[in-house]
Amino acid sequence: MVLVRPRNPLNMGAAARAMANFGFQQLSVVAPWAPHWREARSAVGAPELLQCAKETASLAEAVADCTLVVGTGTLTYRKAEQQVVQLPALAPLVARELARGGRIAVVFGPEKHGLTRDDLSYCHALVEIPTDARQPSMNLGQAVAVCLYELSSRAFETAEDFSADNSNSTRLSLEASAAPSGTLDLLSGLIEETMGAAGYSPRSMQAANRHDLRLLVRRLGLNPADSRRVLGLFRRVLWRLKRPPGSQNEPG
Amino acid sequence: MVLVRPRNPLNMGAAARAMANFGFQQLSVVAPWAPHWREARSAVGAPELLQCAKETASLAEAVADCTLVVGTGTLTYRKAEQQVVQLPALAPLVARELARGGRIAVVFGPEKHGLTRDDLSYCHALVEIPTDARQPSMNLGQAVAVCLYELSSRAFETAEDFSADNSNSTRLSLEASAAPSGTLDLLSGLIEETMGAAGYSPRSMQAANRHDLRLLVRRLGLNPADSRRVLGLFRRVLWRLKRPPGSQNEPG
Repeated sequence: MVLVRPRNPLNMGAAARAMANFGFQQLSVVAPWAPHWREARSAVGAPELLQCAKETASLAEAVADCTLVVGTGTLTYRKAEQQVVQLPALAPLVARELARGGRIAVVFGPEKHGLTRDDLSYCHALVEIPTDARQPSMNLGQAVAVCLYELSSRAFETAEDFSADNSNSTRLSLEASAAPSGTLDLLSGLIEETMGAAGYSPRSMQAANRHDLRLLVRRLGLNPADSRRVLGLFRRVLWRLKRPPGSQNEPG
Repeated sequence: MVLVRPRNPLNMGAAARAMANFGFQQLSVVAPWAPHWREARSAVGAPELLQCAKETASLAEAVADCTLVVGTGTLTYRKAEQQVVQLPALAPLVARELARGGRIAVVFGPEKHGLTRDDLSYCHALVEIPTDARQPSMNLGQAVAVCLYELSSRAFETAEDFSADNSNSTRLSLEASAAPSGTLDLLSGLIEETMGAAGYSPRSMQAANRHDLRLLVRRLGLNPADSRRVLGLFRRVLWRLKRPPGSQNEPG
């Protein structure tokens, strides 16, 4: 589970407590606001969880090894740029990813405004908690509890079903897993560099392109082998663009 | 929704916020600890809900007009004396009761220890949130959010299915509704009085009897007409016990 720029240590403690209640263990915290968040006293029964949490400077870093990144929020204040899943329908998606050996991150934004458009560009899907249209905004600790309840009570059972189906083809199902988020970031960075080297992207458009590229590489659903192939292709193209034919030291 | 002896106004505010998030409106508060709980500042988007909440001195009074009373808690620290329902299985139960015109209360205990055995004797069922055995105790605001999420996302859809099935037999389905909690309390009080008048219950056992009687009349699943018949019978028996045959003013 990932908390992005959380402000109130009470909410961080509440999130940790909900994780312990529903059997989740790995917490990442991105750029927390309060320096002493690890001592949040509301983490009843879960102080170790805060002590062992990973702190990173960016969301990209926090989810680098994840194959399915799910952002949380409401569509009341934004337009979705990726797949939208209603929370009661999330379990099968997560179960399939777990069964094929994937690693999942559920990402929660800061208290006031939730995840930004930029945060969400690192997510494969946006999960929406079905709240009342007149009062859609949930307390952070409560949103975490509801999502983890839904995942723990439904996703893991379903995951076991999927695993049972695949018991004779573990190697195949592992191979079918998605490429981790960090590899996708490498890829979109390389594509961006290639566009620059090819003179394709005017400087004024670069920020918008970066955002759209992040979303695009996540839509592709590349598996690890394919992502290696595409990375290799773009590395070669970039090398060629920077050194025109005839120059020295061509790679083998 | 009913909060029994809540201690922390922050949790009461969080409960109210979750109610607003999931479209619930009627809050009852039994014997709250803090005098100024209606001003809890954590009730983002739900201050009216706290302002309009009903305050009662006892749980019996809070649920008197309800036909299905569901207590919440964990079985880790207690033995169940009534039907136990896992939260993901609660929706059909609630949906059926809504469809036949019943009125439902979901009851939450105080922060430290949850509902007592006495509180639970007013409940038809105990709903358990499936938490990790190593850390079963949830924060009050988070437990409320999880239960209301489950009910709002599943029970109301199912209730509409039930209602559609019964569209030609509304009168019948209303008649099939359960007797409200207050009527059951009248009945168990009358039975207790009758036992006393018949010299059946030694004084030392009366507290235990009262508790068991409350549970028993809830297990019977009496509908309103049947509960009137049984009340009539016990009133007559009690009258006879107090005035032996031959005395004056026999009722018609």
